[in-house]
Amino acid sequence: MSVFPFSAIVGQREMKLALMVAAVDARIGGVMIFGDRGTGKSTAARALAGTLPPIRAVEGCRYNCEPENAGTCPDACSSKRVRKIAVPFVDLPLGSTEDRVLGTLDLEKALAAGEKHFEPGLLAKAHRGFLYIDEINLLEDHVVDLLLDVAASGENLVERDGLSVRHKARFVLIGSGNPEEGELRPQLLDRFGLSVEVRTPDSIDDRVEIMRRCDAQERDAVKFAAKWKSEDAKVLRNIELAKKALPKVKTSAKIMRSTATLCQMVGADGLRGELTLMRAARALAALEGAGSVTMDHLRTLAPLALRHRLRRDVLDETGSTVRIEMALEELPG
Amino acid sequence: MSVFPFSAIVGQREMKLALMVAAVDARIGGVMIFGDRGTGKSTAARALAGTLPPIRAVEGCRYNCEPENAGTCPDACSSKRVRKIAVPFVDLPLGSTEDRVLGTLDLEKALAAGEKHFEPGLLAKAHRGFLYIDEINLLEDHVVDLLLDVAASGENLVERDGLSVRHKARFVLIGSGNPEEGELRPQLLDRFGLSVEVRTPDSIDDRVEIMRRCDAQERDAVKFAAKWKSEDAKVLRNIELAKKALPKVKTSAKIMRSTATLCQMVGADGLRGELTLMRAARALAALEGAGSVTMDHLRTLAPLALRHRLRRDVLDETGSTVRIEMALEELPG
Amino acid sequence: MSVFPFSAIVGQREMKLALMVAAVDARIGGVMIFGDRGTGKSTAARALAGTLPPIRAVEGCRYNCEPENAGTCPDACSSKRVRKIAVPFVDLPLGSTEDRVLGTLDLEKALAAGEKHFEPGLLAKAHRGFLYIDEINLLEDHVVDLLLDVAASGENLVERDGLSVRHKARFVLIGSGNPEEGELRPQLLDRFGLSVEVRTPDSIDDRVEIMRRCDAQERDAVKFAAKWKSEDAKVLRNIELAKKALPKVKTSAKIMRSTATLCQMVGADGLRGELTLMRAARALAALEGAGSVTMDHLRTLAPLALRHRLRRDVLDETGSTVRIEMALEELPG
Amino acid sequence: MSVFPFSAIVGQREMKLALMVAAVDARIGGVMIFGDRGTGKSTAARALAGTLPPIRAVEGCRYNCEPENAGTCPDACSSKRVRKIAVPFVDLPLGSTEDRVLGTLDLEKALAAGEKHFEPGLLAKAHRGFLYIDEINLLEDHVVDLLLDVAASGENLVERDGLSVRHKARFVLIGSGNPEEGELRPQLLDRFGLSVEVRTPDSIDDRVEIMRRCDAQERDAVKFAAKWKSEDAKVLRNIELAKKALPKVKTSAKIMRSTATLCQMVGADGLRGELTLMRAARALAALEGAGSVTMDHLRTLAPLALRHRLRRDVLDETGSTVRIEMALEELPG
Amino acid sequence: MSVFPFSAIVGQREMKLALMVAAVDARIGGVMIFGDRGTGKSTAARALAGTLPPIRAVEGCRYNCEPENAGTCPDACSSKRVRKIAVPFVDLPLGSTEDRVLGTLDLEKALAAGEKHFEPGLLAKAHRGFLYIDEINLLEDHVVDLLLDVAASGENLVERDGLSVRHKARFVLIGSGNPEEGELRPQLLDRFGLSVEVRTPDSIDDRVEIMRRCDAQERDAVKFAAKWKSEDAKVLRNIELAKKALPKVKTSAKIMRSTATLCQMVGADGLRGELTLMRAARALAALEGAGSVTMDHLRTLAPLALRHRLRRDVLDETGSTVRIEMALEELPG
Amino acid sequence: MSVFPFSAIVGQREMKLALMVAAVDARIGGVMIFGDRGTGKSTAARALAGTLPPIRAVEGCRYNCEPENAGTCPDACSSKRVRKIAVPFVDLPLGSTEDRVLGTLDLEKALAAGEKHFEPGLLAKAHRGFLYIDEINLLEDHVVDLLLDVAASGENLVERDGLSVRHKARFVLIGSGNPEEGELRPQLLDRFGLSVEVRTPDSIDDRVEIMRRCDAQERDAVKFAAKWKSEDAKVLRNIELAKKALPKVKTSAKIMRSTATLCQMVGADGLRGELTLMRAARALAALEGAGSVTMDHLRTLAPLALRHRLRRDVLDETGSTVRIEMALEELPG
Repeated sequence: MSVFPFSAIVGQREMKLALMVAAVDARIGGVMIFGDRGTGKSTAARALAGTLPPIRAVEGCRYNCEPENAGTCPDACSSKRVRKIAVPFVDLPLGSTEDRVLGTLDLEKALAAGEKHFEPGLLAKAHRGFLYIDEINLLEDHVVDLLLDVAASGENLVERDGLSVRHKARFVLIGSGNPEEGELRPQLLDRFGLSVEVRTPDSIDDRVEIMRRCDAQERDAVKFAAKWKSEDAKVLRNIELAKKALPKVKTSAKIMRSTATLCQMVGADGLRGELTLMRAARALAALEGAGSVTMDHLRTLAPLALRHRLRRDVLDETGSTVRIEMALEELPG
Repeated sequence: MSVFPFSAIVGQREMKLALMVAAVDARIGGVMIFGDRGTGKSTAARALAGTLPPIRAVEGCRYNCEPENAGTCPDACSSKRVRKIAVPFVDLPLGSTEDRVLGTLDLEKALAAGEKHFEPGLLAKAHRGFLYIDEINLLEDHVVDLLLDVAASGENLVERDGLSVRHKARFVLIGSGNPEEGELRPQLLDRFGLSVEVRTPDSIDDRVEIMRRCDAQERDAVKFAAKWKSEDAKVLRNIELAKKALPKVKTSAKIMRSTATLCQMVGADGLRGELTLMRAARALAALEGAGSVTMDHLRTLAPLALRHRLRRDVLDETGSTVRIEMALEELPG
Repeated sequence: MSVFPFSAIVGQREMKLALMVAAVDARIGGVMIFGDRGTGKSTAARALAGTLPPIRAVEGCRYNCEPENAGTCPDACSSKRVRKIAVPFVDLPLGSTEDRVLGTLDLEKALAAGEKHFEPGLLAKAHRGFLYIDEINLLEDHVVDLLLDVAASGENLVERDGLSVRHKARFVLIGSGNPEEGELRPQLLDRFGLSVEVRTPDSIDDRVEIMRRCDAQERDAVKFAAKWKSEDAKVLRNIELAKKALPKVKTSAKIMRSTATLCQMVGADGLRGELTLMRAARALAALEGAGSVTMDHLRTLAPLALRHRLRRDVLDETGSTVRIEMALEELPG
Repeated sequence: MSVFPFSAIVGQREMKLALMVAAVDARIGGVMIFGDRGTGKSTAARALAGTLPPIRAVEGCRYNCEPENAGTCPDACSSKRVRKIAVPFVDLPLGSTEDRVLGTLDLEKALAAGEKHFEPGLLAKAHRGFLYIDEINLLEDHVVDLLLDVAASGENLVERDGLSVRHKARFVLIGSGNPEEGELRPQLLDRFGLSVEVRTPDSIDDRVEIMRRCDAQERDAVKFAAKWKSEDAKVLRNIELAKKALPKVKTSAKIMRSTATLCQMVGADGLRGELTLMRAARALAALEGAGSVTMDHLRTLAPLALRHRLRRDVLDETGSTVRIEMALEELPG
Repeated sequence: MSVFPFSAIVGQREMKLALMVAAVDARIGGVMIFGDRGTGKSTAARALAGTLPPIRAVEGCRYNCEPENAGTCPDACSSKRVRKIAVPFVDLPLGSTEDRVLGTLDLEKALAAGEKHFEPGLLAKAHRGFLYIDEINLLEDHVVDLLLDVAASGENLVERDGLSVRHKARFVLIGSGNPEEGELRPQLLDRFGLSVEVRTPDSIDDRVEIMRRCDAQERDAVKFAAKWKSEDAKVLRNIELAKKALPKVKTSAKIMRSTATLCQMVGADGLRGELTLMRAARALAALEGAGSVTMDHLRTLAPLALRHRLRRDVLDETGSTVRIEMALEELPG
Repeated sequence: MSVFPFSAIVGQREMKLALMVAAVDARIGGVMIFGDRGTGKSTAARALAGTLPPIRAVEGCRYNCEPENAGTCPDACSSKRVRKIAVPFVDLPLGSTEDRVLGTLDLEKALAAGEKHFEPGLLAKAHRGFLYIDEINLLEDHVVDLLLDVAASGENLVERDGLSVRHKARFVLIGSGNPEEGELRPQLLDRFGLSVEVRTPDSIDDRVEIMRRCDAQERDAVKFAAKWKSEDAKVLRNIELAKKALPKVKTSAKIMRSTATLCQMVGADGLRGELTLMRAARALAALEGAGSVTMDHLRTLAPLALRHRLRRDVLDETGSTVRIEMALEELPG
């Protein structure tokens, strides 16, 4: 299947925003997408990855090594030639085992051959790209935990019987799930930086437009991609510029105070909410070319950064997003 | 058991229609058959497969390779002779393991013999034909998921310990199940293109006619097949012609709008409903020799394309099919 | 234990009828016996098998091959001598595994010795005889399913790692179970041709007679068998004649219509009910030496063919058998 | 621990009667003991076994072969010397596996050494003696079923991969259980010939006497055994004489009719109840030296033969034993 | 950790009494300790073991063989030198497997080396000492059962594939558990000879004293041990004398009658209660240097011997201990 | 990730106090941290470890051996060179197996190579440092038990098949968990010395300060660490001095009495509460440079030492901490 252009996605503003923000600052952590089946969750993530330019990697390296950093590669791949590869996009199969994800250290081969034999897993494949987990709520907790650990540290360490292999594994983690089919434990949800909600579009015009575009791509994918190429190039340039501008974006004391006040008002557990909101607002400022974070940036990203961190109040049926919006209105300006 | 002729099936208009539509355009996706035990679900699917003319395949090839495309065969079968084989029809045994379905990559043999050894599974057997899964609700979710992935991509990729084998696996997936015995998760149901409902016929005349035909076939299968041969040939020619006409069938903006409006009215989750309905309506237009899709095509196929995508409303006991029919009546013409 | 003579069984008319009908036409499918513990369910089945004359088989053949058909034997047994063996009667042990039932294909031996090694299972043992499953409701569903598949096709196909063995496995499948101890899924029940209900006899005379006969057999089994030999010979001759007469028995349009009407009146799911009832009525006609099926044949066999195919109506507590009898009375003559 | 003399057991008339009756006629089947913990259930069974005189067996034979019948021994032990061994008493350990019970056929050794290697299990150990199963309700159903099969046929047949071993396994099966801790399935209970209920004695005199005797045995087991030797010898001679007299004991038509009537009155499922009661009454007549069965014999044994075969009536709380006693009173003389 | 002196334990009279009584007469069976966490249950048992003088054992023997009885040692250790070892105290780890407890018979090594290879388990380690099981309710039932069997017979017999090893395993079994965390099955509880209840002390003086003593031991364990040495020596001499006196202690008919009456009054199931109470009272008489058992001995030990053998009466909430005390008051003197 | 300075942690007085007290006197036992996700539980523990000066260890030793004590090392590492290593901090991965934690004894290698081969586990890694277990309630009970055993004894003993390895494993055990996600069994909780509760800070100023500090560290970790270096050095010196002063701190009889009285008032189960409180109060006195324990020390530490040892009273909803504070007020001065 050829990839759908990112710009050709109709609507779904929030999901596209979260993916771009995460692309600008990887420290924001993974993105959790809640929503209906068939709303193009995986299509959007795959599209953003397809938008990004090919990366330079050591040829044949099983870890997608950057030629500049090949010194840390477990395969000592530094001497090899460089090629260009598409930004990796790994779709974690339902029911993946820990071995499949982490890679396997084969002790017997090690003993027989006198050398460490490591078979890289999906984490190595995802290095420098995206790791997409559909229906993450069906994955076992300890695998999710482990993925979040690696995503946070940017490194995968596999140990077995005294042997160990360590390789880089930096990727944007994207999980999706339908809240109606069982939920993630709050402990795990909290470790995702942002969350977005996607819904089947209400507008008939949008729906017809989606049908048209899907149909057009299906009939001639090459022509369709060409048509959207310049739009996608703009998105890409925007992200590149924002990455560079990010360290210089300012956050005033007042903005910090508002961030903390907001988190306290909505009763977010712990401190990851305000740290993430601050970082995400900065990335958005950078995307918009602004020199400092404004209240508008906060307002735009607060639902994405806090929604999945609220304690559920059994008596107050108001949804998380509504509670955040109410708090934003009361927030002293 | 000799195959029952497709045209000799009494009634079951909807099931026959869905099978023919799926045979015209494989991108529509699998067909899910809901219904009573003993209503000939597997008989109909098997009959359609039996109607199709033999296909040309490389002799002895374990993947049913087309002689023209043998270049991609994992066995490098291109040099072999061509023979004609019946269109494959694979009946997935209850309790099949993932290995049985996908095939197995034997690492040890690979190491010992210095060559990759892959034992093809049921997916390879079904290539270019039909894969039938009775009581699909009893299969484990991750196997269903995997079957739907392969059916969607037309390719089976097996990876193990750094070795991988990839072979074509294009087939019409047909699942059947009795909704009274546990249901598929909505996430999986949504991935089937069409669904049909079959019931024990109400008409005594039909029932007697079925008894007569079964009896006749049982007494002399050869004579019975001969009697229905020309009818089956008509069905076949119809499908062949429709396949060729399909790319030229037109879909007006008004039809697209009606499709989207209908899906919104009935509250189908996601966008697969309208995409499938549009495709299926086109295939039906092609079967009927029409140059463009009409409202009648939509009306005929809407229940099949949408019924399994409706959210169940606990308070509104009206069945899915009825809700679709009511929406069809209200639909602005 | 020596076998109890079939004719010496006191009462249990329905069970004996079903076994004889199934012996006349194997296509009717298995017989399911519902009933109290200790009512001689296995005794009756074993007795009927004991009544049948020895069959001719290739000596030492592990598949009970008929000398005439030995060409299809996996062991290529055709050259061997012929001997007479008792009609096989296999009692499936509780908790039998799939391997035990199907037989096992030993791949390693195959590789080592350069030849396929197949260890036949219980299905091979039961070929040309009876397979009895006590408390079938305790067997795993997929094993029951598999047994019904083989019973329907008359052939057992075992595949593993690209090797396969196929052997004939024609047998009358007899299951027994106590409905109080969990039920079979309707999907499986429907695949049994006939069902019978057995109960502890109400008549004191019958009970005393049973005690007497059991006592007599226990004291001198040889003398007891001799006493009932001629009765058993009559049963046997009756079955043999009926088998020959069967193809010529006529079924009028009116009888077919009554059959279908009856099935619809009682609400039997699917069409297996009427097909089985038609076949069983013909076999009964043949047993009685009648040239065509009459309403009486239908009446006699309707409960056996339909009872286990009725949908349970929670509000209507009337038992299945009663509902069939009521429908029979209303049935236009 | 030295065995407690059978005659030294205080009270527990019913349990002792059942064990003696089962010792006279093994065809009566196993004995199921229901009752409180700590009431000497295993002591009584072990005591009866200890009372019986040593048996003659082929020296070193792993199947306790009778020198006269050694021809059927799987070890072909016939040439060996004869020794005297105590009547076997096997106490089945909680959690025994099927292999442990049946014995294991070692295929690999068979292939390597060119000869069948069978490791006999507990069934071989119990041959010609007793097999005691404490808390039988904790054993898996299929193991209980299997034990009852072997107990009924007197033979153990182990098959694996085409090899098979068959050895004699005749024993009195004794199960015990506390009905408060989960029950056996009625299907299994029915297969025990007799059942008895034991309770902690009510009489202080009995309890003091038990303490005295246990104390005496503990202080000097040899002296204690000597004291009860002649009583035990009487029990033994009684059993030996009854075995010989058994075939000549008469059962009148009236007694048979009463037996059947009683079983019908109490609503015993199936026919095992009356067959067992008839056999047990004959064994009791033989023990008492009577030439024919009387109503008193029936009365004495009816609760033991029928109690565990009654259907539980939820509305009628009267215990099984009471229902049998009431029926006995109403029974026409 | 150095062992705490037995005499330095503050309070806990009942627990200390039970341990001493069990040390005097091992036939009384294990001691079950119910009670709060952190009340020194394991400390007391370990302390008593530490009080006992070293035992003489064959050097290097894996079964702690007494030099006098080394003839029965599976390792044929008799020729080796003698050493003194501390009385064994084995603390069974939570989650111990049957193999770990019993020891393992390695068949393969046996075949390869031509000799039986047995790896002794924890039972061998505990021989001639104590086996302590904390939270016995968390152990699997069949392991508890097995431990009680060995404790009762004083011998461990391991059988596998026709090989067997038998070694002595005499030990005082001590179990502890908190009744709030799930209970042992009554069948297993009944097999413990005595039970005691421990609670956090109520007296502040006691609690301060405990703190002082723990503190003192922690600061200088050697000095602390020295301080309590003479007290511990008295306890030890007392036990030694009692062991010798035990066979001569008298039990009058009246005492026996009172014992039985008491057991009946409180409704103890089975007869183990009165047998244990009689034995324990004798051991206490011996510890007190009395020539015969008195009512006071009975009174002191009745709660320990009977408390865990009472049937729980749902309507009568009075605790087991209270019921025993009430019965003791009513008991005719 | 670079470690956050201990002194830079905002608020969380109780958690910091517990960690320092445990660092002064390891006999106090582990620290259990209850609290919200995202409140820096692991950050604080890791920070304290990072504050401590490097330790001297034998180079390459897998057990972090102190050069002075290398004689007890299983690897006989004494001859090797000395290096300085950071204080170990081991984060136990979710779902760790017993083998991973304890280390594995490889029997086969032992037999083949003629030497014991032990692969140290996480316990060896944690020696002389900290073992942190996030979400300890998700760990299996027997692993928690085992960790607490080793933490208490300071030694890890692995036995398998007669081989054994013993190595030192002294560490501060720190567990964390959210009481909303399942609780530890009281038996296990009681074995932790102290417990603390952490919450998301209420003060906006604190929250802004935390954001500032996290941001500062993220921007330039080296500069941030330099800024807090002197504060951390003070903490460290404080702990070092307190360790030396500890043996001389006095505990008056009155303080002991108050400790015991307090424990009784709040109804702490067992005696670990008062022993721990006494020790912890002494460590705090030492940290504050006081010569003897005062009531204030008791008051400060009582909630930490007793909170997790209270029996939950279903009717009294007052939380554990409140009950302790109420008791402290009533406590006679």
